Amino acid sequence: MKSKNSLSILLIFAFLFFIFSCNPSQTQTVAPKADTISASITDPLPSWNEGRSKQSILDFIRNSTDSTSKGFVPVAYRIACFDNDGTLWAESPVPFQLYFMVDRIKAMAPQHPKWKTRQPFKGILAGDLKSALAGGEKAILELTMATSAGMTTDEFDKNVKDWMSTATHPKTGKHFNEMVYQPMLELLSYLRANGYKTFIVSGGGIDFMRVWTEQAYGIPPYQVVGSSFKTKYDTTGKEPVLIKVPELNFNDDKLGKPVGIHEHIGQRPVFTAGNSDGDYAMMQYTSTGSGPRFGMYVHHTDSIREYFYGDGPGLAQLKRGMEDATKYHWLIVDMKTDWKKIYPFDK
Amino acid sequence: MKSKNSLSILLIFAFLFFIFSCNPSQTQTVAPKADTISASITDPLPSWNEGRSKQSILDFIRNSTDSTSKGFVPVAYRIACFDNDGTLWAESPVPFQLYFMVDRIKAMAPQHPKWKTRQPFKGILAGDLKSALAGGEKAILELTMATSAGMTTDEFDKNVKDWMSTATHPKTGKHFNEMVYQPMLELLSYLRANGYKTFIVSGGGIDFMRVWTEQAYGIPPYQVVGSSFKTKYDTTGKEPVLIKVPELNFNDDKLGKPVGIHEHIGQRPVFTAGNSDGDYAMMQYTSTGSGPRFGMYVHHTDSIREYFYGDGPGLAQLKRGMEDATKYHWLIVDMKTDWKKIYPFDK
Repeated sequence: MKSKNSLSILLIFAFLFFIFSCNPSQTQTVAPKADTISASITDPLPSWNEGRSKQSILDFIRNSTDSTSKGFVPVAYRIACFDNDGTLWAESPVPFQLYFMVDRIKAMAPQHPKWKTRQPFKGILAGDLKSALAGGEKAILELTMATSAGMTTDEFDKNVKDWMSTATHPKTGKHFNEMVYQPMLELLSYLRANGYKTFIVSGGGIDFMRVWTEQAYGIPPYQVVGSSFKTKYDTTGKEPVLIKVPELNFNDDKLGKPVGIHEHIGQRPVFTAGNSDGDYAMMQYTSTGSGPRFGMYVHHTDSIREYFYGDGPGLAQLKRGMEDATKYHWLIVDMKTDWKKIYPFDK
Repeated sequence: MKSKNSLSILLIFAFLFFIFSCNPSQTQTVAPKADTISASITDPLPSWNEGRSKQSILDFIRNSTDSTSKGFVPVAYRIACFDNDGTLWAESPVPFQLYFMVDRIKAMAPQHPKWKTRQPFKGILAGDLKSALAGGEKAILELTMATSAGMTTDEFDKNVKDWMSTATHPKTGKHFNEMVYQPMLELLSYLRANGYKTFIVSGGGIDFMRVWTEQAYGIPPYQVVGSSFKTKYDTTGKEPVLIKVPELNFNDDKLGKPVGIHEHIGQRPVFTAGNSDGDYAMMQYTSTGSGPRFGMYVHHTDSIREYFYGDGPGLAQLKRGMEDATKYHWLIVDMKTDWKKIYPFDK
């Protein structure tokens, strides 16, 4: 990996440090609002509480499919983009891809006996992430390269698949791909039912996500945009393979998100959802297009059912987005009051 | 543009030189076979003559959708990739994107008075391509940068759209987007009707193609893979824009095609069509996957209704593909005998 290109990995770890040091999930203790009104059987968003947020989403989608409305959007332009970490699935206490990296290091350790005495691997194997990452960028590069490059794309896919079927979240005990947001699943389905193509546009690894997004969200691999290593077509072995090369290909975060959208989708979205200032450029790119546009931020306000964060400094900060929400007509979704349930497994 | 990355542009021009010097379209004089048998109204490929080529395509698609067949392919895996130049539309006497570049130079000339006396622009403006390109790589870089970079993506899109609606082919007098192959349009439609997602995977410019592929082929922008310049999200002006930067981002040709497929689609195709050795790696990547796979080459054998080329040296050569056709079970489509008509406007 070229060191100048390692920004996205650094940002992930910056977020990790932020979570470690601030632990803001303890700052809110109000119980979630109970909503006992049964949703209508025809309600496309049954896990959303009635209110302005739900209504504005329903209104936008309804108008966009009504050819007599000022808000009409022809089918060919119905492109909807979603950030992943913190928007479609949880990202606390650390982004889930980090758990994958840690678990891979542990699984690979028997083939690398020297890792026991050498940082950053030593720290990972001892369960001491802080010491592992004390080496800064160099340490991060080593961990990333060891777990995500120097192997075929098929091998990497299998690693992710195997990990996803066994690893569980430290707080919920659920598999990570179960920790998707039920209200967002309903929104994705409702958009698709109304002719929208739904895309993921995430700073996470494109190859990491593609293995499980179709099952989790109904989003096929070719509608996933993310960060990537370069790959190389190799015909020197028994059969042709694609090798993941330890050099960053694309950093799909912040100003990279509109670029990733252009490169993969080739159209300006009309509907975009994110949860942090990392999504600001993508939201701005969407909302400054001509014609009807809809942008929404998922605000992590529920310390009981999920996590409370976003207001303080750190990678997952939602500050600039909040400041410009009125200017760009962005909806701020309050998880605590707008969402009847968080995960599909919630009662 | 980084000079080491200018391969794809060079290859296009290499092809141009090849065509100029060899002019192989005059080497065949046999009249096309007339097929007067009316196609059945239920025939999904009415512009294909009956025979082994048509039958093998129909058999593969039928088996791939029959869950009781050994050739069954689940819907999620039905990915079909098509080269563009020479596979979906014509590419003679020179690839059509070159006409766009030449016409853009002419259109921009009044704002660049010094071009009249300076190569490579002088040669283009005088209708003398050979002198324009005598400067080699440097000249090509200048032409490409002048016509495809240093502007917003919206400006470039408008240039392509305007050009496509006015420019015409020197031989047929038709607009270039009318010179698509009718038998391939039918194949694309039939694949889609059977649950396949159809993608373009071309060495041509991704931004150049996306403007018109939906109308011409029913392939939306997000299912087009091609070569690209880097883009940059710019917020310094009145409104945010994406600027095309004069640096190659990706060269989607030869060994780059499987890489482009992985990056944009994330799945190995089961059906692939090309027309030259530039498509060999993509065809090989497809055909060496496990389970049912189908690869086909369009062989340009019709000097009367289209062009005769591919057997000699040059960019559009089909040599290695022919040699390995049996090994990989590739179908060689003979345009002269397999296709009842070439273009939609043919009688």
